[in-house]
Amino acid sequence: MSLLFRQLTICGVGLIGGSLALTARKHGLVERIVGLGRTQGNLDVALARGLIDSATRDPAEAARGADLVMLATPVMTFPETLAAMVPHLPDAAVITDVGSVKSWVVREVEPLLGPRMAFVGVHPVAGKELTGAAAADEELYRNRRVIVTPSARSTPEAVAKIEALWRATGANVERMTPQAHDAILARASHLPQIASSALAVALADELVDGQWAAGFGAGGLRDTTRIAASSAEMWRDICLTNREAISAALGLYARAFADFSRAVENGDAARLLELFERGRRMRERLK
Amino acid sequence: MSLLFRQLTICGVGLIGGSLALTARKHGLVERIVGLGRTQGNLDVALARGLIDSATRDPAEAARGADLVMLATPVMTFPETLAAMVPHLPDAAVITDVGSVKSWVVREVEPLLGPRMAFVGVHPVAGKELTGAAAADEELYRNRRVIVTPSARSTPEAVAKIEALWRATGANVERMTPQAHDAILARASHLPQIASSALAVALADELVDGQWAAGFGAGGLRDTTRIAASSAEMWRDICLTNREAISAALGLYARAFADFSRAVENGDAARLLELFERGRRMRERLK
Repeated sequence: MSLLFRQLTICGVGLIGGSLALTARKHGLVERIVGLGRTQGNLDVALARGLIDSATRDPAEAARGADLVMLATPVMTFPETLAAMVPHLPDAAVITDVGSVKSWVVREVEPLLGPRMAFVGVHPVAGKELTGAAAADEELYRNRRVIVTPSARSTPEAVAKIEALWRATGANVERMTPQAHDAILARASHLPQIASSALAVALADELVDGQWAAGFGAGGLRDTTRIAASSAEMWRDICLTNREAISAALGLYARAFADFSRAVENGDAARLLELFERGRRMRERLK
Repeated sequence: MSLLFRQLTICGVGLIGGSLALTARKHGLVERIVGLGRTQGNLDVALARGLIDSATRDPAEAARGADLVMLATPVMTFPETLAAMVPHLPDAAVITDVGSVKSWVVREVEPLLGPRMAFVGVHPVAGKELTGAAAADEELYRNRRVIVTPSARSTPEAVAKIEALWRATGANVERMTPQAHDAILARASHLPQIASSALAVALADELVDGQWAAGFGAGGLRDTTRIAASSAEMWRDICLTNREAISAALGLYARAFADFSRAVENGDAARLLELFERGRRMRERLK
């Protein structure tokens, strides 16, 4: 593999950005990596682990010389971060991101770009149980999906280079529109989160004869609510930035849940069997 | 420990009944164990593993000499099975069960009892991934909850003996009313099942641009739908036999889900944070 960019500046050197940095460095895909962060502690870890060559908390300093900027902070901070960097970036810099929503990012980020800059949205669909530079792992993306979402300001050259960068991680790189991405993730990721969190909320304070009902739950309750333990701030932001697609996905769920409720209330044996069986077959297909 | 019953007849020698048989035999709590079953294959396994001393497919034969009958088949078959046995049972036989709903069982079973018989409902809250006599495991109940639900036809002597039998497994035996049991399990077990199955149903056939959206799901979707793979027949029967308590639990969930839906639609950041945070705290409490 050959050099793709001279200087990669990663805004937010956490698990996602830091893991990519390890691959980019190992394969010589970039010459130099700069980390932009808010907390010196995490930047120090990133420096000590060799994820980055230099660290700064100043967006202007981070921007200078960067022909690739990777936005890897919480999605809603992208516009402010990028706006502070643009005046200091090279004319033809490429901007990319790793946010888990895409239409909102395109809508907010593209208007901020200089006339010769390009933007390529990316969503690496990878686990996030651990956070921070300390958790960066070169193998994080192997055989995982990385979705690239070309948009109006994506040049074919920039898309090709960003895809080459991600392919080097061992990920399965695929391409779709920001809208298709958001609709799919609303269903496959955002809806399960809300279904899980709603179950946790429903049972949070529910007592029966003075005993906490959820305390009697076994593996089923624990599995179904596991992701309810995720970061509330992260999921608030996902809901705010993928509102329409999530609302549509919630509608699908509301209909299925209402079908179950009606079948329970009516004691409809045939319908209950049909619904549970349909769910069972879907789960088998999921493996 | 000392002898509790002369002859235990287990109706349905599967994981639950078979595991209890192993403990009863090991500690000498019963003299003789008879297995009643529908399929000779499973009864042969139970005999070969020493779970039972003799096997039959005839309820009358299974009833003779049994001072304890344990109903361990699917709940909705209890009335028919017991009705066929009662005329052949000793006058003062004790009937118990291991069903996962309790009020329905009490309502259906108690009227079938002879005048000197007693009934003690039990729900061992233990995993059921495996089934059949081959899966019976003496350690299945250790440190698990076993809920005993005394009812009108439970004599104090029968309750004491049934509790002693279950304590021998290493389980944590506790007592509550059938109604409290059903309300608690509707919340802690039946509701999570329906929430999980409804998610699987909602996504079963959902395509975005020709691609199956659920195929893009990661660990979150898999965890949240894991129990949707459970037996459709079993869950149909639970819904039919615990209808009112489940309807109430579904109402709790519907309200929580509607709260999330409204907050998403309104883009209400403060409310979203509050809801996700409440779910997160509940899940932490669950451990």
